[in-house]
Amino acid sequence: MVASPLGPAGDLRPSSRLQRLLPFLDWLLHYRGEYLAGDLMAGIIVAIMLVPQSMAYALLAGLPPEVGLYASIVPVVLYGLLGSSRTLAVGPVAIVSLLVAAGVGPLVPEGDVALYTRLALTLALLVGILQAGMGLLRLGFLVNFLSHPVLVGFTGAAAIVIGFSQVKHVLGISMPRLEHFYQKVLYTAQHLGESNPVTLAIGLGSVAVLVVFKRWVPGWLDRLGVPQGWRIPLAKGAPLLVVLAGTVLVATLRLDQRAGVAVVGEVPAGLPRLTLPLFDLAWWELLLPTALAISFVGYMESISVAKSLASRRRQKVDADQELRALGVANLGAALTGGYPVTGGFSRSVVNFEAGANTGLASIITAGLIALTVLLLTPLFYYLPKAVLASIILVAVAGLVDRHAIRHIWQYNKGDGMAMAVTFLAVLAISVEMGIVVGVLTSLAIYIWRTSKPHMAIVGRIGKSEMYRNVLRYRVQTWPQVLLIRVDESLYFANTKYLEDRVLALVADNPELRYLVLIGTAVNFIDASALETLESLHHELEAAGVELHLAAMKGPVLDRLVAVGFVDLLGPERFHFSTHDALIALGFVDPKDRDTRSPAEAAREAHLDPPLLDVRRAVRGPGQAHDRLSAA
Amino acid sequence: MVASPLGPAGDLRPSSRLQRLLPFLDWLLHYRGEYLAGDLMAGIIVAIMLVPQSMAYALLAGLPPEVGLYASIVPVVLYGLLGSSRTLAVGPVAIVSLLVAAGVGPLVPEGDVALYTRLALTLALLVGILQAGMGLLRLGFLVNFLSHPVLVGFTGAAAIVIGFSQVKHVLGISMPRLEHFYQKVLYTAQHLGESNPVTLAIGLGSVAVLVVFKRWVPGWLDRLGVPQGWRIPLAKGAPLLVVLAGTVLVATLRLDQRAGVAVVGEVPAGLPRLTLPLFDLAWWELLLPTALAISFVGYMESISVAKSLASRRRQKVDADQELRALGVANLGAALTGGYPVTGGFSRSVVNFEAGANTGLASIITAGLIALTVLLLTPLFYYLPKAVLASIILVAVAGLVDRHAIRHIWQYNKGDGMAMAVTFLAVLAISVEMGIVVGVLTSLAIYIWRTSKPHMAIVGRIGKSEMYRNVLRYRVQTWPQVLLIRVDESLYFANTKYLEDRVLALVADNPELRYLVLIGTAVNFIDASALETLESLHHELEAAGVELHLAAMKGPVLDRLVAVGFVDLLGPERFHFSTHDALIALGFVDPKDRDTRSPAEAAREAHLDPPLLDVRRAVRGPGQAHDRLSAA
Repeated sequence: MVASPLGPAGDLRPSSRLQRLLPFLDWLLHYRGEYLAGDLMAGIIVAIMLVPQSMAYALLAGLPPEVGLYASIVPVVLYGLLGSSRTLAVGPVAIVSLLVAAGVGPLVPEGDVALYTRLALTLALLVGILQAGMGLLRLGFLVNFLSHPVLVGFTGAAAIVIGFSQVKHVLGISMPRLEHFYQKVLYTAQHLGESNPVTLAIGLGSVAVLVVFKRWVPGWLDRLGVPQGWRIPLAKGAPLLVVLAGTVLVATLRLDQRAGVAVVGEVPAGLPRLTLPLFDLAWWELLLPTALAISFVGYMESISVAKSLASRRRQKVDADQELRALGVANLGAALTGGYPVTGGFSRSVVNFEAGANTGLASIITAGLIALTVLLLTPLFYYLPKAVLASIILVAVAGLVDRHAIRHIWQYNKGDGMAMAVTFLAVLAISVEMGIVVGVLTSLAIYIWRTSKPHMAIVGRIGKSEMYRNVLRYRVQTWPQVLLIRVDESLYFANTKYLEDRVLALVADNPELRYLVLIGTAVNFIDASALETLESLHHELEAAGVELHLAAMKGPVLDRLVAVGFVDLLGPERFHFSTHDALIALGFVDPKDRDTRSPAEAAREAHLDPPLLDVRRAVRGPGQAHDRLSAA
Repeated sequence: MVASPLGPAGDLRPSSRLQRLLPFLDWLLHYRGEYLAGDLMAGIIVAIMLVPQSMAYALLAGLPPEVGLYASIVPVVLYGLLGSSRTLAVGPVAIVSLLVAAGVGPLVPEGDVALYTRLALTLALLVGILQAGMGLLRLGFLVNFLSHPVLVGFTGAAAIVIGFSQVKHVLGISMPRLEHFYQKVLYTAQHLGESNPVTLAIGLGSVAVLVVFKRWVPGWLDRLGVPQGWRIPLAKGAPLLVVLAGTVLVATLRLDQRAGVAVVGEVPAGLPRLTLPLFDLAWWELLLPTALAISFVGYMESISVAKSLASRRRQKVDADQELRALGVANLGAALTGGYPVTGGFSRSVVNFEAGANTGLASIITAGLIALTVLLLTPLFYYLPKAVLASIILVAVAGLVDRHAIRHIWQYNKGDGMAMAVTFLAVLAISVEMGIVVGVLTSLAIYIWRTSKPHMAIVGRIGKSEMYRNVLRYRVQTWPQVLLIRVDESLYFANTKYLEDRVLALVADNPELRYLVLIGTAVNFIDASALETLESLHHELEAAGVELHLAAMKGPVLDRLVAVGFVDLLGPERFHFSTHDALIALGFVDPKDRDTRSPAEAAREAHLDPPLLDVRRAVRGPGQAHDRLSAA
């Protein structure tokens, strides 16, 4: 038996509906002692990363730092219990924080922290309702409309916006709230002179340490022969290190008072209290676009990393359960003073690599964050904001995926266009509109592409049953018959194009008596296309050309029979295959066969490079025939 | 030589660019004496129809009746000179008039006729600019996005709205301006008691005469042996007849004063003067949505009838020249006191059947309308509005195409849905929004359809080279190899669906070693799908299953080579055809061949009816194999 990529069947398809809705039943009831070491280690390391990151991301979202910590307790536990991924690390992430800032910021008068925090809670509530609702209604497939190029373009531009939003903290300049990205860039350029040199030194020093740890420390640890178990905590401890160093520096030298270094200030101690989001439809309506954007983008980020990690251990994630789990985690955030969360890329990878086996790792992380807010908050008073900014800067630098950008652009200009439009729309309009514009652009490009379908005139390869493009193969053609393969389903947007092309070909080929449309690539024919085929049939009839159809698919043919189109043309005009059509029309003798294998025949007939004179070959198959048979 | 459906080449492809831009050069320079009789007869008959219709449609548009007459002079001449169709009859039509009323009405205070008329002129200017511009930029293909079902649904609903708008004239009740269709229906129902019995009698009598002429008179004339040349004028003269009869009746009995029958009143005599539309960007912006709707819908109505008539005489129309000609005709309307015009269905058919050979027929029509406004306007004073309303009512009754509605609904539920949504949106929201909603719905249905593609598991028919759906044919399959034909291009919206289906199939088939994706229906693979194929390859690899690709098309394969995907899998995993793949994998011996023809083999293997247990057969091809080979 071949190993399944999905692990033993028991792992994949929990027998009961209950186990699918409550995945922790599965790992809790079968918890093995050997899981514990990995879960403990991973839980601790992720907590070490999460303390500074969650405060930094809260600041990015425009929220007080403790909101980030609160969002890392109850939501993380809830996901640990309900998530179908065993290694996803949930919590505040950069892009969602940016969306929160972009969505809530404009609704709140500057300085009204209470309202801002309450709206962030409410946003988490809406995201929770949307995600859980989509999960219950099995609407997870909707995120498929966020294409890969749109996501790459969006993430890249969002990383630039996020990164730039931190520059002011590193420079130590204060900036009024500005709406557009270009305004912020302009303002920063005009006020560079007001930078605080001490803040700048702390920020750049911190960036330098983080970059060194990211780039070179793993290699050094490797060469020094540090035991595997210590490498990850040492390499991933950099944010904690800069936080400690920065705090000690500012506290001992009182740089906050003496040099005006901006610090985090008082962070309230104690576990988060029960909080109530706003239940007010007017606010909900204002927040809805942002909530939708966060629900989609957050889920997309989460499910991608969850799937990629699960496949590395031959486990499986359940897309709809993931939506429900993230939804419940966000509802948890809404009730415990947090803000929207999702599964983050970098922390999940660390969680996985540090050995997380079950949701217990997340629960351990959450426990440590809880201890932090209970005991350690006084230590954060002197933490410089420039250090938190440097953590964000280094984290988002990795989000601009230059490899993917180059790859997409090279592969396909349409996809490249969708990516570029999304990228520019995020920078020029706004983060939320960027996604909408991107999705609409990618759909428009798809429609555009299918509205001008590729059509090939085909001919017979040797004496085989294979019929291929006259431009790519040395094939046999006949002046009385035109074999046209339409490489697209026929629907309203391309049916007139097809008609015009076919009629032009007919007009150019006076000897023509039969026109065979080959349906191998026609996956459906809609009502508009049916109408066109009927009128094409009549037009060809008037010109003394018989329309035949070959190799139509079963589902398409069923419809054509039902609607009477097969009777209109006559069943003898429908052929099982192209070869069959030519036998029926008397051009090919079925007995006269090739002795070579298909691969051999094809290799010999293949033209490399293909003919480029599409226009000529398509316009004049008779000529193409002469030219090709002469070759 | 076979006759071309498009007539002699000289007809189709005027040699010079000048002749394409000025089609009248073609017919004027080659005008033959034998054309004249037909042109004269058609010109007169169309004029007889156009006098009452143009006034009726102007009233429908909310304009004074003379505006309809003015729109039937200069625009008709311009189209006659510039149109590439020789038989299209241009002028005011019902649906465009309705769009004018819906677009201009809400912008003008009730009673301000001068502003209303000026805005209608301005609308004609914008329509002219849009259509001529689209024609020059060769954007005629954009109308392809108006699908057949959307057009049928829109026309049907618009006919109901138009028809109902005339009910008040037939009843003789006055109605304040109301925004929504349901409000008008409600108001009419509540004020039925205020009907004017004399007006109602005139209106219903007029309807009765028109219906009799439409339904039975052509048959009677036929049976009575009336000469062919007299039949059309007699049958189509009904509107003129009711106009004359109604006018004489009201004038002699002074029913306007004695019984309160609403009449047309004073119509100014004389040719239209030069008029100036508003050149004010604020107004243009307000009128733009309506102008866009009129440009598209008007062009669509016009090009459909022009094409259908041209193909009956093996002539051809040039889509872009049609746009330019209609655009210039509308500019002419804007400068000579008219309102937007287009090619109308019924008058064009009459023009054609009455024997119009060239644009001269249109010019004769326009001349007769000019004579009418010069000499006959005093006669229209006593013309009852109820008679004009009855002309519209009978004309639009034919626009609800019940045959097409039933046909579309039966053929395909997706198309039926697009039609129904458009129909309801026109009635429930507005005529303009109805089109927008319809176009978006049809695009969404298309995307939806391609996002869940049909996938077939195929097997070999007999010992042939043909591989077909296991559910439709008795075929050979192998438990170690799964042949999957994906009936759709792979793109972002369906790529995750494909991945999930394939992985589920793999999980269900433990003996599987090779998975062959058959690309006959895959017309392109976008960047998202490429990403999915790469991860699918890795997932299958981990499960010990080899991913092979067969029968990928040339353009698709070119891209896969360029991006390195062929090297990633290894070129030996790419096969020329499904048969070729099975030979390469050692399952099929190329020498072991069928002696039957493909058609014979297929007929014998065909299962009728097809197996319906898709789920079982697709999930377990091993079982399907057993079951099918047992059959």
